[in-house]
This record gives sequence, structure tokens and C-alpha cells, in this order.
Amino acid sequence: MKFARFIKDSAIGYAVVEDNKLKVLKGDFLKEVAFSGIMYDLSEVKLLAPVAPGKIIAVGLNYLDHIKEFGDRPVPENPTLFLKLPSTVVGPGDDIVLPRDYQRVDFEAELAVVISRHCYDVSPEEAGEYILGATCLNDVTERVIQKADGQWTRGKNFPTFCPIGPYVVTGVDLGNLDICSRLNGKVMQQSNTRHFLWNPAELVSFISRSIPLEAGDVVTTGTPSGVAPMLPGDTIEIEIEDVGSLVNGIVGVE
Amino acid sequence: MKFARFIKDSAIGYAVVEDNKLKVLKGDFLKEVAFSGIMYDLSEVKLLAPVAPGKIIAVGLNYLDHIKEFGDRPVPENPTLFLKLPSTVVGPGDDIVLPRDYQRVDFEAELAVVISRHCYDVSPEEAGEYILGATCLNDVTERVIQKADGQWTRGKNFPTFCPIGPYVVTGVDLGNLDICSRLNGKVMQQSNTRHFLWNPAELVSFISRSIPLEAGDVVTTGTPSGVAPMLPGDTIEIEIEDVGSLVNGIVGVE
Repeated sequence: MKFARFIKDSAIGYAVVEDNKLKVLKGDFLKEVAFSGIMYDLSEVKLLAPVAPGKIIAVGLNYLDHIKEFGDRPVPENPTLFLKLPSTVVGPGDDIVLPRDYQRVDFEAELAVVISRHCYDVSPEEAGEYILGATCLNDVTERVIQKADGQWTRGKNFPTFCPIGPYVVTGVDLGNLDICSRLNGKVMQQSNTRHFLWNPAELVSFISRSIPLEAGDVVTTGTPSGVAPMLPGDTIEIEIEDVGSLVNGIVGVE
Repeated sequence: MKFARFIKDSAIGYAVVEDNKLKVLKGDFLKEVAFSGIMYDLSEVKLLAPVAPGKIIAVGLNYLDHIKEFGDRPVPENPTLFLKLPSTVVGPGDDIVLPRDYQRVDFEAELAVVISRHCYDVSPEEAGEYILGATCLNDVTERVIQKADGQWTRGKNFPTFCPIGPYVVTGVDLGNLDICSRLNGKVMQQSNTRHFLWNPAELVSFISRSIPLEAGDVVTTGTPSGVAPMLPGDTIEIEIEDVGSLVNGIVGVE
């Protein structure tokens, strides 16, 4: 199933997407999938990020090739966790706004998973039951600030630095998906989620040993090699096999 | 003024505190200070953390003596930011729960400020207008995990790792306050906020250049030297001049 969140006539709605049609739900798909009987064409609504997460937990280094990309870093013993704030989230088609005085703002194509319900201290074997589905996420990063600060908080948390969407897709084999990014149509990152150091269930389990997860929270699984900076006027696309294509334009501060 | 948030008969309320009396408000003091006419004794209610922050932004190294405490680290050029999740917050009197398999869980006495309203890209001169008041915060830290992970996310974000309270106090001179922590009554940290590398207005301004702040968000200002581990059965107190005393017990996982 493909779930969407949208806005139409100033009201937020939720839907199941089939063949470019939105079958509108009575409420949030995180709670219940009950159809309202209303249908829209995709062209009639503006899609939002498919969830409004209470928290976004990100993993720094989860593809071996991306670790090598920045020099001879050792492979970490555990996933390296950092947080992106809800204030960074935008949806498909929204602009990524480069901060005033930005130096280098990179895209990072990532497979993200959405948590279905409260999840704390679960095993990797159990963790899959708490994953509702998958979506595309662009972990936009001010690379110069990230490196200078040591802690990645500031470099990862400017407004608009977390495009998510367009859909939450259920029933996908998360361990074998082609993932790529295209900058102005040119392929920049190309990998497959079988190259993960830790798969999504292992990550959700690991995180849940420290941090309680709730319905709608997002866990994003790291990016493969090929990250590069974006400039005003650029268009960045994250495409993941069976999951979707997330496209955003880049603008400077007005 | 001293603002409190409390629970009584399963309902959350807000109050102004005067002489151990709660003058109950009609709603959240973040929105409006309108008295309901109801009064309680402090002993009649359970105090909660005085705010339920949407985000907690913390500063790693803001007293010169604490930087020296962990070896010859250079003084950072900018404040080192990290995040504590709302899921870590507990109130005065609540237990701090040591994680299963904890190795070293430290207290960190901190002066925290509460943001009064939306605040983005403000100067240090303007930032004071967005600070509602001050409270005590214990930035509880799993030190071994913090160091091993590099990113401080996991070591700082176990549940109960952010006691806040008991009150939000307005009209205090944030730049000259004695601050101390006592472990089982013994003074462990003792300093004064005049030793800040960056004062609260400078921190709020710096953060607001990257991250929009909202009413009720908490910015915590770092800890002085003297941090040390806590064990089950211990009691930790954070006391800040004119701001209050925050006391929590330590327990292991049941």
C-alpha cells in the first residue's frame, strides 16, 4: 500500500494512493485505514511529507563506500546516531533553502522507515513489526559546519534540510532496493540497500535500546557514496526502487 | 515571577508560585497569565517539569573549567550544540533510571532558559526578549557511550536523562548566579554563571541563526567542572541561586 498526506483547501488529509488516484481516509493512516469514500486525482492536491514525525533519528555511516569517501575513517562498532528536528521537514516539490552564508550544502539520498507504534527495547527479530513502511529522505547537510562543529546538530538542522516523501510504501523488501540521487538529471549516487552495514530492523532495534520510538517517528538509514553540493536553481531527486521519487528544488535565502 | 506546571487529580495545571502557594492559572503561562482564582498548597500537587518542550537544545562546553576537565581540548570557536529529546524529560522528584548495562551515568548541573515565543535569526542584543525565564536542568549523560559514539545523541537521550525544574523563574540576572550540584548532600560542582564562555542571550542568538525556536523550547547552557557518576540509591540536587533546587533520586532498571 502507498500512503500519502496532502493538503487541499487548507485542510490536511490522508490517503491511499492507487494509479494516481487518492482514496481519502477518514483519519491518519498511522491510527486506522478507513476509507471516507472521497477520491481525488493526484493533480488536485498538494502532497506533504507523508508523516509529521515527532522525531527523526538518523544514522551517519551505514554504507561502507560512504565511509571511505571522507578518508580513512574506521568502520564504527555501532551505528552513529544523530537527530534531525521536526522543524527541518519539507515535502515533495518543496524548496530546499540554502542558509545565508552557506558554504557547502550537500544532498544525501536515504531510505527512511516510518515507525508504526510505540517501540522500546526490541530485538532485531521483533523490530520489523514496528516498521510501517519506507519512504525517500534527503538528509541535507551543511558540510563545512558539520565538520567544524564536531557534533552534527547544526549542520543537519537548518529549516528545509529534511525533504521526506512522497509516500510511505508498505510491503517492500527493504534489504534489496536500488537507490540513487540525480542532480539536475545527472546520476550522483547509485547503490543498493543490500550494502547496508546495518539493515533497518537492526537500526530500529539498536535505537530502541536507548530511545523510545513512537508512531510516525522516522528512522533514516544513511547514504551511499557520491554526495555533492547543491546550488540555487538546482533540482535534486532521490529515487528508490519500489518506494518512489522525491524531487526538490534549491533556492537561496530571499 | 515563578511559574510551575503540576498535576492534580490526573489533570495538568499551570500556576504562579508565591510563598509555597500555587495561584492556579486559567491556562499555560506560555500563552497568558490569567488567574483562575483557585489556590493550592505546594503539598497538595505533584510538580511536573515546568514546561513540556518541543525541543531541548544543549551546549556541550560552556565553562572553561569543564573543558579542561577532560584533557587538553581546545576552546571551541563556536558553541557545540547537541539535542536532548522530549522523551528524556522528567520533573522534580522523579527518578533518574540508569539504563540496563550502564557503565557510567553522570550528573551535569545546568542553568536552562525557556523560550517565550517564536525566535529565528535574532541578534544577541535581541535574544533576551525571547527568554521567558530560567530553570534548573540536569543534563544526565552516559559518559562511556558518549565518548565511544563520537556523536552525543545516544549517551544523552535515555529516558529520564533530562530532569527540569522545579520552576521557571523570571527577572533573574542570568549572568551572575551561583550554581552547584550535590550528590547525597556533598557539593560536587560549584561555579557561577559569570564563567560562561557564551551567555544565554548569545547562545539563543547563535542557535536561532540555524534552528527556529518556539515557545516552551529549552536551551540549556552547559555544565561546570566536577561531573561524576551516580549509582542506584543516590540523590542528586542541582541548585541555582534565585532559580531553585532540583532534586532527583537514582534507580536501576527493575
